[in-house]
Amino acid sequence: MAQKIVAGLFGFGVVGEGLYKLIRQSGYPNVELKTIVVQDKEKKRLLPPERFNYNKDEILNDSEIELVFELISDAEEAFMIVKAALLSGKNVVTANKKMVATHLAELIELQQKTGKVLLYEAAVAGAIPVVQTVDRYLAWQNVKSIRGIFNGTSNYILTALHNGLNYQEALREAQLKGYAEADPTLDVGGYDAKFKSIILALHGFGKLYKPEEVFHAGIQCIDSHEIVWAESHNYTLKLVGNIYSTDNGVSISVLPEFVTTEDKLSKVNGVLNGVTVETSNSGSYFLEGEGAGSGPTGQAVLGDVAPVQTNSSYLYNKGVEESKPVNAVWNIYLKTDVEALLEQITFDQIFEESKYEGQHRIIGRISVSELEKLSESERKHVFIGKLPDNFLQSNKEYQANAKKDPILT
Amino acid sequence: MAQKIVAGLFGFGVVGEGLYKLIRQSGYPNVELKTIVVQDKEKKRLLPPERFNYNKDEILNDSEIELVFELISDAEEAFMIVKAALLSGKNVVTANKKMVATHLAELIELQQKTGKVLLYEAAVAGAIPVVQTVDRYLAWQNVKSIRGIFNGTSNYILTALHNGLNYQEALREAQLKGYAEADPTLDVGGYDAKFKSIILALHGFGKLYKPEEVFHAGIQCIDSHEIVWAESHNYTLKLVGNIYSTDNGVSISVLPEFVTTEDKLSKVNGVLNGVTVETSNSGSYFLEGEGAGSGPTGQAVLGDVAPVQTNSSYLYNKGVEESKPVNAVWNIYLKTDVEALLEQITFDQIFEESKYEGQHRIIGRISVSELEKLSESERKHVFIGKLPDNFLQSNKEYQANAKKDPILT
Repeated sequence: MAQKIVAGLFGFGVVGEGLYKLIRQSGYPNVELKTIVVQDKEKKRLLPPERFNYNKDEILNDSEIELVFELISDAEEAFMIVKAALLSGKNVVTANKKMVATHLAELIELQQKTGKVLLYEAAVAGAIPVVQTVDRYLAWQNVKSIRGIFNGTSNYILTALHNGLNYQEALREAQLKGYAEADPTLDVGGYDAKFKSIILALHGFGKLYKPEEVFHAGIQCIDSHEIVWAESHNYTLKLVGNIYSTDNGVSISVLPEFVTTEDKLSKVNGVLNGVTVETSNSGSYFLEGEGAGSGPTGQAVLGDVAPVQTNSSYLYNKGVEESKPVNAVWNIYLKTDVEALLEQITFDQIFEESKYEGQHRIIGRISVSELEKLSESERKHVFIGKLPDNFLQSNKEYQANAKKDPILT
Repeated sequence: MAQKIVAGLFGFGVVGEGLYKLIRQSGYPNVELKTIVVQDKEKKRLLPPERFNYNKDEILNDSEIELVFELISDAEEAFMIVKAALLSGKNVVTANKKMVATHLAELIELQQKTGKVLLYEAAVAGAIPVVQTVDRYLAWQNVKSIRGIFNGTSNYILTALHNGLNYQEALREAQLKGYAEADPTLDVGGYDAKFKSIILALHGFGKLYKPEEVFHAGIQCIDSHEIVWAESHNYTLKLVGNIYSTDNGVSISVLPEFVTTEDKLSKVNGVLNGVTVETSNSGSYFLEGEGAGSGPTGQAVLGDVAPVQTNSSYLYNKGVEESKPVNAVWNIYLKTDVEALLEQITFDQIFEESKYEGQHRIIGRISVSELEKLSESERKHVFIGKLPDNFLQSNKEYQANAKKDPILT
């Protein structure tokens, strides 16, 4: 067994507390949590106040500490801590997806300059070890696509919508259960899933994207009409992070998708996360696990300790190339109650169009660059759902069956 | 990127050829396949004869070779090679499940004595990186159960049975597609899945089992009666390797299971493999991928190269303790056309019993030690299927529904 490692912990929220409990409960003595630094002196916590420090330097200047767990929520403050820790010769494990996704280029440079280990499995897909699987296990394998449900909050709400609740009820339920913040925008707006997708795009495809250049849309405008339409067409609505190779480059996006019932992602329900990785030579992988919570995220942090002990940084074997997403063309179901917004965008082709109770609905083919003409604040008033590429054909079959079955017409 | 590693390869069958192609196609220069040793000089192969050597020492005595890929089929010969390679200071990656499962204790001792890296991801569950996930990522996590479909051949046949073929047709189809050997006993008899279960039991639970002490039963006696019965009760028949903690110890077995339709294993079809890992503090994980074939198994071998390059052996963090499986008591559906065999075993409780067209069927509760009274050759004439623990209760609901629905009676 590897030697005991002396560690310092920044942050004692859901993840930090989860990590602390796991280290205590597991009975494995390999990690000694020497110092815990938190910000708020008044906050009530699981442990007595004397267990905590309030000065970053208590960890950063302690030469005995070899490993820093960075588990605070503020992304910029987290980046400062990670940077200082690496530069002072410490290994770092972090769970901060926004910080990692926003500073990937600088982080890799710092890691390579210092030669220390920097890992962030907990930043993506909760308990599922997908970063190391893509980075290390599939280092020599060509990845064709990575598609996943990366945000437990949105998935909980979407599952509840399919179970008959409306959006406000579903959101309220998620908030009562502690799955959604008071301001849920980061989750339901697709931002969180975007950070995770950007991290996977680097490890799987060697592409480095700026968050502001990756298209994303949220689930806020979904109502029962969309749910009924989806179910009658044998689809399930999921918020999907989608990265895939095309002849012209790599496409990356986060938006609601009408997922077919044969797709494994359609069965990933509640706060679970799931991800499909398609490769050139070893088929498809599907991984599912808990997407959030103290224990699962704490485990994802703890799971990075073994590679730290063998000095195993990520390989970044596909390269690190600053890129722009390819301008894909998709089949889209779009709905809005602000008709003026529709004047800003042009569909390549419109398959169906309707107005009903103040809602305009268009099903058609449109490029991402058109959808991006809608600003982020405008997108709050628009539902943009991606349909399968074979939508037209399967819709013909649906229409033919609907004619036979009076219930569907 | 890590330095180039010079490797030698033993065996050029399905897996060896797959590995060779991946190394060539992937365009990553990190592995140089210097020497390939095979046994049969006459066999026609993808590469010209001059690319091969026929003397083991060409690899074992070559001090430039740091890594040995052991991919031959003979388990005892493979063990000799792995032993010699480790003792001569080389790292080893092997795909031989029988060899690993049979010699685990000696292999770990050799690994620790020599300090070299020994990895065998490809030995378990095809392309799925489950050994490293359980050993390394979940090293500090308490594992409650590991359940999986580990044999693609049996799963292909069982899927075909549910699609309406009979056993002989399904086996023939599997043979024609190259999924089953001329003598399929190792696969359909549960031996292969048992070796894989034994490997996972060590990494997940720290228990070391002798293959001859682990109960297994095969799928050979399944006919349409069992398939119809399963489907009418909402079950799918799967050959499941099942390892789980009980208050009295760990249970390990391989036998056909009537899997509920909510169980993710019920959706793992064809030659796919799938595995569920249940933990104490981070929920359940489900991993699915290709169970066999040149590319997927070659990938599993290649995926072990990155940890070799960082000198990352398995952790065996749960310990290595020689153990006997606990004597579990299960709900069992048993069928045989050899009535005399039934006299050897005693059920704790019999729920249903019938004789029909020469077949005796018993559904009841029985301990593993009773089932073990049937010898391996006797078990070829008996179908032994494990039912869920809540079978009686769900069967009551089935019976109640059946009364309402004339089709089911």
